[in-house]
Amino acid sequence: MRRFAAERAKDLIRSQSLQRQNRRRYCLLSPLFPLSSRSQSRFLSSASAPDPPPAMGSPPVTLDTINPKVLKCEYAVRGEIVSIAQRLQQELKENPGSHPFDEILYCNIGNPQSLGQQPITFFREVLALCDHPSILDKSETQGLFSADAIERAWQILDQIPGRATGAYSHSQGIKGLRDAIAAGIEARDGFPADPNDIFLTDGASPAVHMMMQLLTRSESDGILCPIPQYPLYSASIALHGGTLVPYYLDEEAGWGLEMSELQKQLDSARSKGITVRALVVINPGNPTGQVLAEENQQQIVEFCKKEGLVLLADEVYQENIYVPDKQFHSFKKIAHSMGYGDNDISLVSFQSVSKGYYGECGKRGGYMEVTGFSADVREQIYKVASVNLCSNITGQILASLVMNPPKVGDESYESYREERDGILSSLARRAKILENAFNSLEGITCNRAEGAMYLFPRIDLPQKAIKAAEAVKTAPDAFYCRRLLDATGIVVVAGSGFGQVPGTWHFRCTILPQEDKIPAVVSRLTEFHKKFMDEFRD
Amino acid sequence: MRRFAAERAKDLIRSQSLQRQNRRRYCLLSPLFPLSSRSQSRFLSSASAPDPPPAMGSPPVTLDTINPKVLKCEYAVRGEIVSIAQRLQQELKENPGSHPFDEILYCNIGNPQSLGQQPITFFREVLALCDHPSILDKSETQGLFSADAIERAWQILDQIPGRATGAYSHSQGIKGLRDAIAAGIEARDGFPADPNDIFLTDGASPAVHMMMQLLTRSESDGILCPIPQYPLYSASIALHGGTLVPYYLDEEAGWGLEMSELQKQLDSARSKGITVRALVVINPGNPTGQVLAEENQQQIVEFCKKEGLVLLADEVYQENIYVPDKQFHSFKKIAHSMGYGDNDISLVSFQSVSKGYYGECGKRGGYMEVTGFSADVREQIYKVASVNLCSNITGQILASLVMNPPKVGDESYESYREERDGILSSLARRAKILENAFNSLEGITCNRAEGAMYLFPRIDLPQKAIKAAEAVKTAPDAFYCRRLLDATGIVVVAGSGFGQVPGTWHFRCTILPQEDKIPAVVSRLTEFHKKFMDEFRD
Repeated sequence: MRRFAAERAKDLIRSQSLQRQNRRRYCLLSPLFPLSSRSQSRFLSSASAPDPPPAMGSPPVTLDTINPKVLKCEYAVRGEIVSIAQRLQQELKENPGSHPFDEILYCNIGNPQSLGQQPITFFREVLALCDHPSILDKSETQGLFSADAIERAWQILDQIPGRATGAYSHSQGIKGLRDAIAAGIEARDGFPADPNDIFLTDGASPAVHMMMQLLTRSESDGILCPIPQYPLYSASIALHGGTLVPYYLDEEAGWGLEMSELQKQLDSARSKGITVRALVVINPGNPTGQVLAEENQQQIVEFCKKEGLVLLADEVYQENIYVPDKQFHSFKKIAHSMGYGDNDISLVSFQSVSKGYYGECGKRGGYMEVTGFSADVREQIYKVASVNLCSNITGQILASLVMNPPKVGDESYESYREERDGILSSLARRAKILENAFNSLEGITCNRAEGAMYLFPRIDLPQKAIKAAEAVKTAPDAFYCRRLLDATGIVVVAGSGFGQVPGTWHFRCTILPQEDKIPAVVSRLTEFHKKFMDEFRD
Repeated sequence: MRRFAAERAKDLIRSQSLQRQNRRRYCLLSPLFPLSSRSQSRFLSSASAPDPPPAMGSPPVTLDTINPKVLKCEYAVRGEIVSIAQRLQQELKENPGSHPFDEILYCNIGNPQSLGQQPITFFREVLALCDHPSILDKSETQGLFSADAIERAWQILDQIPGRATGAYSHSQGIKGLRDAIAAGIEARDGFPADPNDIFLTDGASPAVHMMMQLLTRSESDGILCPIPQYPLYSASIALHGGTLVPYYLDEEAGWGLEMSELQKQLDSARSKGITVRALVVINPGNPTGQVLAEENQQQIVEFCKKEGLVLLADEVYQENIYVPDKQFHSFKKIAHSMGYGDNDISLVSFQSVSKGYYGECGKRGGYMEVTGFSADVREQIYKVASVNLCSNITGQILASLVMNPPKVGDESYESYREERDGILSSLARRAKILENAFNSLEGITCNRAEGAMYLFPRIDLPQKAIKAAEAVKTAPDAFYCRRLLDATGIVVVAGSGFGQVPGTWHFRCTILPQEDKIPAVVSRLTEFHKKFMDEFRD
């Protein structure tokens, strides 16, 4: 049923979409282009000829009568393959031995704790104490919680009016927590940060939506996005009715961001009548794992300044760097070190508690730091934030904690450092092992994961496999991923969900399975791939 | 600066809006109507003539170049008066005695814990234990937490794959928690509930947005909303580009919902070319506090079925009933007791952890129960939910707790019952005292708060006051509210933020100040009102 409905939705989209979309159907299933003006005008013109009320007994809402932007939006990371994986998992539970594997390994999504990563103890101690402050002064609490966690909980509670962790906060988040986050940003960058520039959000996704909503007036507003991209961007642009303007990362140059490509795509979009509003940069990269060089970041800042673009900097993987020759620099730091300030560039930096070494995805905490916007535009952002009242306080507290972890000398510091370094060094090892494994396979090449949580290997698929995929109306990389799942229980996401250069095929695989499972992942992958190639080799 | 910007935004909106809007400017500042097609086409036509890139040094985003839907959206509950209140609070802190009151009393928003209401102990115990499960089997924990809270935490953790409260969940929320919520709904209604119909969300607001997004294709799609309404509805309809079709509640009949009015407004909207998609009913009412009679609810169900409308039932105040002659019935229960099922009516019920006796606003938990939609449309809702991955797990857990509180025989039951009943009976007393106080004032009439958390008194303002308000370009009720704030520190929201019959004036006042503060609220209100009337009496 799910599959049928998805197919129907796709058919509808296809029938509505532009020819240029067809040209790219296999290279990019994400919605990179707006609805055609023809289909749009169908709805606008209905003002004079409304739909008749549904006939008695027929449903008031059908696929034909929902918002076409919703229909058009795709989100591969939780797409069909995950539904299939969930079904297989259920089958394994009800009927052990029914598949050639005994568990599903979700490598489709950056969700570390779902694969066994443990939370940072200090963070959870503080959260528990803030949830139930009445135990703070009980004697048993001293035995259960570290002294600095107790102290931190008091500090946080003192910053919340009435110590009410169950109250709506200021729409941007609790002021004291924003102060702490601003202090964390200052410590990170060496440049001042203003707590009034911080908007706390339920993870980074709602923050991205908010900016897309603000910037998109119609399909002729465009947003420059990297290809491959994290599908939140294509999905939110589609939902808000704008146009995704793609720029391709250079796989041969380690997923480098070439300024000439940016300029070319900007000029091309403008020549087509698109008003390009912003540039999305994901650093460290998702799904590509590259970390931008400082000089490259300077060029990007210069480009946005010159072209009058908002720089939307997805910096949620700022803690996830795995190679000694690369370092994370925030775009704000780069811009400031170039001597630029609020009058020179409009910059939004997104951060999340879901990533880093902490991986607290389920807490839905995050923030955006909004700089270089006029007071009246900022007020509009504030208003949109207000309509949802505020983000969740647990997530707000956690965001303040990840930006201000224990410091040298604090009781928890040593154990905190051990937990953090243990996770990060293990992630670096896992990234390397998986990268090597991919590169050892016939027809697969894989850039290194310098950061983030993913590898994005390229598969040179045999023509016979491509034909087999076409025969079942599936993109070739999705065909490969489905076969992989059926054979091994490993869930990865096809490159077509992220976008890729036409005619190339990839998949995204997280580096998150726990270290003791990595050998099995590698051997299952290897065995599958060999069989696949044997079956389809031209 | 805030004020200036807000004024500028309003000027822009005014210049873009329809004449019919002007006609109602004072009766309804919320955006009840879509942008004119003229202003809309300005943006659509830009496809062939895009905005030139901003000149070097000019900001890439200005009020003139943001999404006009954002500009148009208003949200009175957190509007200008709250900004002023926050400024006054800051002034009081820095300079005690600088105003004729010593604290700000926020009666603008249903935020109980911000005014001193304490959280329900059992709920917070469970949350703390789920946040930091490693203390669950420590001996000190027995001394700090009740046995059934410990047991419940174990139960919940066992329902979460890997006991990972820090992992993204299923996009609809953790299955085991949805099972618990469905069981709670069944116990409440006496009819079956399906966990697959539950979508857990970060409070009710994102759920409402999701449905508006699904249903709105263009400005010719309309949503029937009560007037007065909670401004989330007008704001989300504005943000998604639809048309709010107002129906007026009958103040003389205790804010009754008259079927003839519904039919009249539906027919009128259809005759103007609007495709009406859904009917919003808020029960218990916000800002009006009425509780619908069972028979009235049956008529509404029949109406939606007959007219092919989705019924969007805002039932977040289902626990807040203060009068013995009224009872809450969910619309789902009503429909089922009429013999209707999924094929007869498309129904969405919104619930939140922010309201009830628990008032856990800051936790941002809630759900919508979606019934009577086809599988393919449901899949589209699932997809939109997926783009934001999942709602926060703490809120999810709390939603399962409020729908399954301790039961007779549980260790915590007695203390839980005491806390719950204490809060609810106190709210009932406060509602009555405030209602009586309002009704004792010259020119004020106030319906009783049968439920919810608000009173919405009507003020018969003297002509002289209306003229004074016009002289400062303020709606007369907003003028009154501003004067009240300046004189007493009490923050209430003008009726013009919720909508009201043209020529009538109201304000919304929560019943949430703690009981020991109510006498002061009453005396300050009374004193202010007398002076105001003395100043402006015709």
